[in-house]
Amino acid sequence: MTEGSGAKPCIILNEPQLAENIGAVARVMANFGLDDLRMVRPRDGWPQERAWACASGADWPLDEAKVFDTLEAAVADLHRLYATTARPREVMLPIITPREGAAALHEAVGEGLNTGLLFGGERAGLETQDIALCQAIITIPIDPRFRSLNLAQAVAINAYEWRTQTQDRPPPAFREGPPAADQQMLTGLYGHLEGDLDEAGFFHPEEKKPSMVRNLRAIFARSNLNEQEVRTLRGVVTALSRGRGRVLAKLAAQKAKTPS
Amino acid sequence: MTEGSGAKPCIILNEPQLAENIGAVARVMANFGLDDLRMVRPRDGWPQERAWACASGADWPLDEAKVFDTLEAAVADLHRLYATTARPREVMLPIITPREGAAALHEAVGEGLNTGLLFGGERAGLETQDIALCQAIITIPIDPRFRSLNLAQAVAINAYEWRTQTQDRPPPAFREGPPAADQQMLTGLYGHLEGDLDEAGFFHPEEKKPSMVRNLRAIFARSNLNEQEVRTLRGVVTALSRGRGRVLAKLAAQKAKTPS
Repeated sequence: MTEGSGAKPCIILNEPQLAENIGAVARVMANFGLDDLRMVRPRDGWPQERAWACASGADWPLDEAKVFDTLEAAVADLHRLYATTARPREVMLPIITPREGAAALHEAVGEGLNTGLLFGGERAGLETQDIALCQAIITIPIDPRFRSLNLAQAVAINAYEWRTQTQDRPPPAFREGPPAADQQMLTGLYGHLEGDLDEAGFFHPEEKKPSMVRNLRAIFARSNLNEQEVRTLRGVVTALSRGRGRVLAKLAAQKAKTPS
Repeated sequence: MTEGSGAKPCIILNEPQLAENIGAVARVMANFGLDDLRMVRPRDGWPQERAWACASGADWPLDEAKVFDTLEAAVADLHRLYATTARPREVMLPIITPREGAAALHEAVGEGLNTGLLFGGERAGLETQDIALCQAIITIPIDPRFRSLNLAQAVAINAYEWRTQTQDRPPPAFREGPPAADQQMLTGLYGHLEGDLDEAGFFHPEEKKPSMVRNLRAIFARSNLNEQEVRTLRGVVTALSRGRGRVLAKLAAQKAKTPS
């Protein structure tokens, strides 16, 4: 096993046709942290400038891509190989989802094995004899009414699943940032808002006040407000309560100046 | 709600630049069973022949694509909108994975709500004020060393998650409870609140107004307000704006009666 090669799956493109797609594959590999790109008999030879032009700067998988004459040679060092195809042929292999495939890859990598994902060319896909080299078939859940999935998209979905499972940890519900408001701050906000609404004659009829208050509080309670937001909302209440008073006062003053 | 429109999320491209990418988006939409494509101000106008040429036969999302002048108009009928961005800005919204996003979409669709996934243009991505219209931010777990994800790839990963969960889920139950507010109602609330705050001199200093507006909107956007709650909040704004005026007027009247 080459040093480090067991840490991530490699991507094998079998007889890829368009340099644009090879570049797009390199780009999604970089997006999801993969770097070992292998190709078997690229139709237009190698290297091809257009691949780099289409990689948006993800040059390293292309710079270090390895080209092989046969699929057997390309996958010689791998312990686990999964074929990705939307049209599984008559091969008696387990058919699994990209999610199950990523789980299998992680398990294999965890055991120190070398792994790879195999993709067919744009037109022909994978031949039965290619698929037969693999441990399982990964089938992306395509709508049967429109099966024409772009090569780089197929790589992207599998690479995304790989990376998602690499990052076991769920992301935080909120980014790090301002401290969350505690109940005391919320109570202060509620009291302020409800006091001003009371003064404004909002709670009407009186017997509906408790449910009106409850409904208002629920809106803010489920917002997971932070401290700054509570201060902002209190500023909003104050501004609305006082501001219109100022506007009315100004209007009244103008009216007073107008000769009647 | 238009018949059937609640059954699947729509895809909204905000200021997309390349027709090739629009075509590639249509193709992955078809791959994963989505068909409602909306665009806001496509850079090179619409229709563009190259989009069809790049869709590999997935013509129907393009044939029926709707084009809008503003994002607000494009999402007016939606009840749940998720922004997909790799670079969340300073907006206080929950950040979720594509998998969590798809689960949220399925839940909302199960309740009969209209849903959408929002994507920014190739170069600029989404602006903070666009994101503030959304209920949450979906972030694809990209390798931070290479964040340049192709637009169609971002759509593909979310559409794949949607479809994967479509196949895993029991048939939807019906939503209980009051109807959810759509974006149009929310926009109305925002306009009302911000107008009154403007009059009240709240947005001060002027150059901070955009960020103040954004932060306020995010609070309400993430609350998943129902229609009644939007009406209640508008009543709150009106009451606060007018009420204090009445109180001041009453005080002034009392003062006038008092002999000085």
